[in-house]
Amino acid sequence: MVRVGVFGANGRVGQLIIDDLKESENISLSSVFVRTELNFSIDPSVLVSTDIKSFLNACDIVIDFSLPEACEALLEAAIKTPKPLVIGTTGLSAHQLNLLKQASENMPVLYATNMSLGVALLNKLVYQASSALDGFDIEIVEMHHKHKKDAPSGTALTLAESAAAGRGLDLDKVRVSGRDGNIGERTEDEIAVMAIRGGDIVGRHTVGFYNDGEFIELNHTATSRSTFSKGAIRAGAWLADKEPGLYSISDCLEL
Amino acid sequence: MVRVGVFGANGRVGQLIIDDLKESENISLSSVFVRTELNFSIDPSVLVSTDIKSFLNACDIVIDFSLPEACEALLEAAIKTPKPLVIGTTGLSAHQLNLLKQASENMPVLYATNMSLGVALLNKLVYQASSALDGFDIEIVEMHHKHKKDAPSGTALTLAESAAAGRGLDLDKVRVSGRDGNIGERTEDEIAVMAIRGGDIVGRHTVGFYNDGEFIELNHTATSRSTFSKGAIRAGAWLADKEPGLYSISDCLEL
Amino acid sequence: MVRVGVFGANGRVGQLIIDDLKESENISLSSVFVRTELNFSIDPSVLVSTDIKSFLNACDIVIDFSLPEACEALLEAAIKTPKPLVIGTTGLSAHQLNLLKQASENMPVLYATNMSLGVALLNKLVYQASSALDGFDIEIVEMHHKHKKDAPSGTALTLAESAAAGRGLDLDKVRVSGRDGNIGERTEDEIAVMAIRGGDIVGRHTVGFYNDGEFIELNHTATSRSTFSKGAIRAGAWLADKEPGLYSISDCLEL
Amino acid sequence: MVRVGVFGANGRVGQLIIDDLKESENISLSSVFVRTELNFSIDPSVLVSTDIKSFLNACDIVIDFSLPEACEALLEAAIKTPKPLVIGTTGLSAHQLNLLKQASENMPVLYATNMSLGVALLNKLVYQASSALDGFDIEIVEMHHKHKKDAPSGTALTLAESAAAGRGLDLDKVRVSGRDGNIGERTEDEIAVMAIRGGDIVGRHTVGFYNDGEFIELNHTATSRSTFSKGAIRAGAWLADKEPGLYSISDCLEL
Repeated sequence: MVRVGVFGANGRVGQLIIDDLKESENISLSSVFVRTELNFSIDPSVLVSTDIKSFLNACDIVIDFSLPEACEALLEAAIKTPKPLVIGTTGLSAHQLNLLKQASENMPVLYATNMSLGVALLNKLVYQASSALDGFDIEIVEMHHKHKKDAPSGTALTLAESAAAGRGLDLDKVRVSGRDGNIGERTEDEIAVMAIRGGDIVGRHTVGFYNDGEFIELNHTATSRSTFSKGAIRAGAWLADKEPGLYSISDCLEL
Repeated sequence: MVRVGVFGANGRVGQLIIDDLKESENISLSSVFVRTELNFSIDPSVLVSTDIKSFLNACDIVIDFSLPEACEALLEAAIKTPKPLVIGTTGLSAHQLNLLKQASENMPVLYATNMSLGVALLNKLVYQASSALDGFDIEIVEMHHKHKKDAPSGTALTLAESAAAGRGLDLDKVRVSGRDGNIGERTEDEIAVMAIRGGDIVGRHTVGFYNDGEFIELNHTATSRSTFSKGAIRAGAWLADKEPGLYSISDCLEL
Repeated sequence: MVRVGVFGANGRVGQLIIDDLKESENISLSSVFVRTELNFSIDPSVLVSTDIKSFLNACDIVIDFSLPEACEALLEAAIKTPKPLVIGTTGLSAHQLNLLKQASENMPVLYATNMSLGVALLNKLVYQASSALDGFDIEIVEMHHKHKKDAPSGTALTLAESAAAGRGLDLDKVRVSGRDGNIGERTEDEIAVMAIRGGDIVGRHTVGFYNDGEFIELNHTATSRSTFSKGAIRAGAWLADKEPGLYSISDCLEL
Repeated sequence: MVRVGVFGANGRVGQLIIDDLKESENISLSSVFVRTELNFSIDPSVLVSTDIKSFLNACDIVIDFSLPEACEALLEAAIKTPKPLVIGTTGLSAHQLNLLKQASENMPVLYATNMSLGVALLNKLVYQASSALDGFDIEIVEMHHKHKKDAPSGTALTLAESAAAGRGLDLDKVRVSGRDGNIGERTEDEIAVMAIRGGDIVGRHTVGFYNDGEFIELNHTATSRSTFSKGAIRAGAWLADKEPGLYSISDCLEL
């Protein structure tokens, strides 16, 4: 039985992970980290802690869906108290990503901006299409609910990285996030990643490849957040016995 | 027989208008304005001129699909030599739009950023949806070929105006053209108008209305530019006997 | 306080209505009809009955999301014990629809194959587009989860009725539900209503209008079933004090 | 210089091939087969023939976009007078497909229901997705202009074959082309291939993979027929020096 510590237990996905663990086999909840112990009701066998170290000691692996700053604190604590880490927090800064790489030297760390099987596959297909459809213009549109605070989504950026890699491009140099005014003709290498916001959309990503005479659009739509929580639990079970290193969701899915 | 002067005769739509006029009844080409007379082959009965006044004198109505500066010169000349004007040029500045209004005091002027029947209808549907679906978030995505130089498209801005009007909003205050970074939650009134560019897409516009539990997306796709040229010719035939004033494509279509 | 009787309480939407009524103001659950009283846990103040007449007597209005045969039994009972009826059951036969009309002579009956605000609006837009875009080919695609047993969806058929009405067509004579083999060119009036099934899609409907040079596609997507339950509760509150007659969701929404 | 014979020269794609060959390097038109020589104007250096054998003798390779019966006559003649054949005719019967295989024993035959690069890639992506997304429901929607006489399109059937192959399924046993009435729940293996018709749509294909919580949709859209004519010419140039055998467009594109 793999014992899971949930970090970000008050978030939407954190709550779903706690629910889904009740119905999972060979893996169960053992600890949650919260900012304040007040008003958090859970099975009494689970440790509810405001102290990261105690939280880490009470579990075999950690699943994190929190915010960048909280995730940073987790990574700093884990460097002292290593545990396999499944990190699903999006919007990490360069410094935070460095901490994550540093942590992965002493423990297995699976970092994925999207835990779904479909998105992992889409990343592979996008890489192939980008390579094969040389000369097609690449554009990405992502859509999320109105409460999402960062843009573009981590998933959209990962898809854009796959597209850029298929062409040998540096995404930082070619990414566009808006267009307004007399912008002139589209340059050959630019990749727009446009963020749409509204309603309760869980997540919709479309990567398009446009040429004279034809185009291809590859779309992934999440219809409920359980895609992410179930994917994270599957990733956690897989990561528990791995060597230190930085893993991706594709590794776990063995696509 | 209505005699048409085509302004912007070297452009893509200008060329189509010249072609389509050959097959039209009761309306025909009489003059074209070009920057240089070189290399422009056409039926010898048509006046090819580099002088706007001569060009205006040789026609009953003008159809213009040019660039903002050229259109400005046309408007200035027409104020002195009035003719019914069908203006399809996009990306006009505030000053140029003022000139257009001024011109419409002495001649009928039909100004449309998109001459298609479908887009005219879509504008009506968008206004209704915006009014009826109070509280739904509004977002617009437009897509055009890689050669288009301005963004968003004139059609997208017109659709955004319809959406804003349905809510009593001032588009200038609520329009968003890109999203990047920690932008925070979506505000209630903002309307994103995002421009995608690539391949040879003639024109695709989607206006979305997003709420908790449901959303509506209204899409128009042009599959060939003949939609615009045929619409402009129909508009020109209609405008020929109208009183001075500013007209829209909806007036002409009598939707 | 309007007291609601829920018919079809074991169904997906029935369950949601029971949940949503807990959070509603001025309207609350008073009775549920079930086939067997076993294993149905609910607040003890609510009547749980296997007898339709008792069920009807314990409520002010009825909301029904059941199956055609059960709905038929409800209608027969209501003819003897009239109550305002909100009927959301799909797949009713001609005989059952007749019963429904008969019932509406002595009580207000609101019949809607889809209770969402967005779908009600879409029906209006489809009617307008069908009228205005004379000569455009009309095609409808609907998508639902893999468990749905009837096709096309009641909503798709209602949309098709709106499209046919906009052209003065009889849907029964022009509807197509599949195409295979050497079918020949599309006839001018036919309206295909194609049903896609898969995954957990709540409901997606697209009505397209296709012409040479351009097309329009009007789409509605339900992202959660709460759209239907909340719409049904709103309809029930509205129907409680109405005169006998047959009402549609548009009446209730006052679009 | 590869000399091309165009079979089906009066068809839409046939005409485009003749036009595009004028601008091609190292490959040019040498003969066309027509039913009647009347009213077919072309460069006098090109043989215009109503006799298949003469037509075959005057070219190095054949490109065929005709109708099933005409294609059958071509195959029968080619068995006696072998030439490399690029066959783009759709809707071939089992008998005609057998003839095609028989012909490929003595000459190279490239058979593709769609000559575009994008569709060839899409076939590969669909196969991979079908294999990787085990348990996702597969559904295909294709859309073409109102003049198309067969359904579903050859391209859609090829995509469905790729999807079925990824699961080890026999398409003939699982394909569905319409849904109407009380059809019951979707079976696990069925693959719907639905045909939409209208306007002047060149070709639009969407292959969807639907699961609880998420779905993927892979779309290809042709924006002009030049995609097909240019692809066929590229295929013809490639096929000219190949060994006898049956080839696919993927072979030619070396994806």
